[in-house]
Amino acid sequence: MPPHGGNLTRAAAEFGLSPRDFLDFSANINPLGLSRRVREAVEDNLWQISHYPDPDCRRLKRALADHLGVDERCLLVGNGAAELIYLLARVVARGRALIPAPTFSEYALAVRAAGGEVAYVFTRPSAGFALPWRDIYRRLGEGDALFLCNPNNPTGTLIPRRELDVLLDMATARRVVVIVDEAFMDFVDDPGEYTLFPLAGRQPNLILVYSLTKILAIPGLRLGALVAPPELVDRLDRLRDPWSVNALAQVAGVAGLQDREYLRQTRAVVSREREFLYRGLSALPGLHPFPGAANFLLVDIGATGYTAAEMVQKMGSKGILLRNCANFPGLGQRYIRLAVRPREENRRLLESLGEIVLK
Amino acid sequence: MPPHGGNLTRAAAEFGLSPRDFLDFSANINPLGLSRRVREAVEDNLWQISHYPDPDCRRLKRALADHLGVDERCLLVGNGAAELIYLLARVVARGRALIPAPTFSEYALAVRAAGGEVAYVFTRPSAGFALPWRDIYRRLGEGDALFLCNPNNPTGTLIPRRELDVLLDMATARRVVVIVDEAFMDFVDDPGEYTLFPLAGRQPNLILVYSLTKILAIPGLRLGALVAPPELVDRLDRLRDPWSVNALAQVAGVAGLQDREYLRQTRAVVSREREFLYRGLSALPGLHPFPGAANFLLVDIGATGYTAAEMVQKMGSKGILLRNCANFPGLGQRYIRLAVRPREENRRLLESLGEIVLK
Repeated sequence: MPPHGGNLTRAAAEFGLSPRDFLDFSANINPLGLSRRVREAVEDNLWQISHYPDPDCRRLKRALADHLGVDERCLLVGNGAAELIYLLARVVARGRALIPAPTFSEYALAVRAAGGEVAYVFTRPSAGFALPWRDIYRRLGEGDALFLCNPNNPTGTLIPRRELDVLLDMATARRVVVIVDEAFMDFVDDPGEYTLFPLAGRQPNLILVYSLTKILAIPGLRLGALVAPPELVDRLDRLRDPWSVNALAQVAGVAGLQDREYLRQTRAVVSREREFLYRGLSALPGLHPFPGAANFLLVDIGATGYTAAEMVQKMGSKGILLRNCANFPGLGQRYIRLAVRPREENRRLLESLGEIVLK
Repeated sequence: MPPHGGNLTRAAAEFGLSPRDFLDFSANINPLGLSRRVREAVEDNLWQISHYPDPDCRRLKRALADHLGVDERCLLVGNGAAELIYLLARVVARGRALIPAPTFSEYALAVRAAGGEVAYVFTRPSAGFALPWRDIYRRLGEGDALFLCNPNNPTGTLIPRRELDVLLDMATARRVVVIVDEAFMDFVDDPGEYTLFPLAGRQPNLILVYSLTKILAIPGLRLGALVAPPELVDRLDRLRDPWSVNALAQVAGVAGLQDREYLRQTRAVVSREREFLYRGLSALPGLHPFPGAANFLLVDIGATGYTAAEMVQKMGSKGILLRNCANFPGLGQRYIRLAVRPREENRRLLESLGEIVLK
């Protein structure tokens, strides 16, 4: 498989450290780590390992419906958002899918795996990776699917709500299916200004993808969801195995969504540390961070004279993992992505980067 | 979704008990429960919840290759065998699939979900549910897929090895793909006499499906594998999301396969208790158990005057869950399936059944 953040097994083999010894800036996970309530819920429910998971995910659906403000019948829970993206591609993107680039690689991989065709629309660093709507409208054909990641991975760019409203009108007129992945929306300062969840499940050609993996820091357990009209949810559900969501992921999801204080604190910490990291990176010679709205920052390191691969190598040998963005179509060899971590780790990151670029 | 064993959430709602209060004879899980080594490995590795799982499942593949005696490159690990069955159906069973009945319902559901056609070949109780080879050979067409469950769920029937050898020759001549699900082979007394794993990965039209969910008693975590030629494994792997196997399932799988003593003891306990249960059931009026080779027994309760649904209801209200087999094509309303459990639970089952049929 292609490189992806958070592959500690590979990193451990490559840099000769134990997986637990790394500072991991390569995976976009909640910097607070597992909430105490999630940890306790998992520990208290280890007995569930020996029982089949609830295939209907009843308790989790209630918690999700409440959290997202959507109808339970519009929810499909998945073994991570990735399962749902691959599943969606088989149903709604079997023709042509328009995908802005750079973005999360799995949309294109899923569309191609389903036999569909991928058409990239490139965003430009000089425009802050804003979506080129004119281009998109020119190229969107009858029956196409459009994948949007909001805020976008790896650029951190948010799509203004008024642009989405225009898009949805247009999409309806042209029978285009719009898939909006809000996996990182929980990390945004004012999510209410940007999220489409209030519309989800009501508009037949709008599908929202959500992830609990990132916000609850449970990528090892896998947990995602999508929101779509009930008929589509039923159709998708029949295409996959009934027990895809394991029992501990369900337990963790319910406990995490009930931990309002953890979710509030997450937003506060990410907001503060994103700012801290952005300033620190900007102050280092040769590093050009882009202002991002999520829990990660895209950084152009071209002016340091190092390629992203070289920088990842140098930092890896110091026990710090970065995400080399070279395999995001459109980015080339000069971009790295950094997760927003707790203050002490962010300091150590800036210090180690300083040792390299100030040398 | 259709009824399935082990749905404690539904049972709890229906019978007004906590999920932990049931004696669960409805799910075919190792009667020893979680091994101590698996439990400890999971507890020691809860930190992995906050890290992405190894998408390559390296440690687990090594353990599986060793356990099954197959080449690592022939292995695909899945989020339970169910994920792999649905995945396989999309690739090898898009035309017509021949499926003996009764058997595990997911084969047919997966084939239909992939747009394929299902043709059932019915086995008969009067023949001990032995496979009707003449029928199968008559109906197997060029390019068809054939699903076999060995030993078969829910009948417990084993396929003699010489019959499989004849089949494989025939299948090669007719370009038929044979999928053999050995999810319950670890519970058989002499698995070496029956398993096809020694051939797996070498014959282009033979695919073996394996499950760790049952033998390691980890259905809540999900873990399965398939063995096929490396080219097919690569092709299947590209069709699904890369992180489908969660981190704790990988940890549990490695620890469980290393626990040789637990695996040895499992076989001993299942063999002894299957015999105990079989004799006990045979001694009760109106119950006719079939001799099964796995960790469960199919029982014809027709002569009690109760339907399977009535019996499930009566036993459920006593806190004992049975599997109603009415939704297995070909079985009708008179069959239940009972997992082989530890002695004390088996005694309580026989006692409660006795209270009903001796009344």
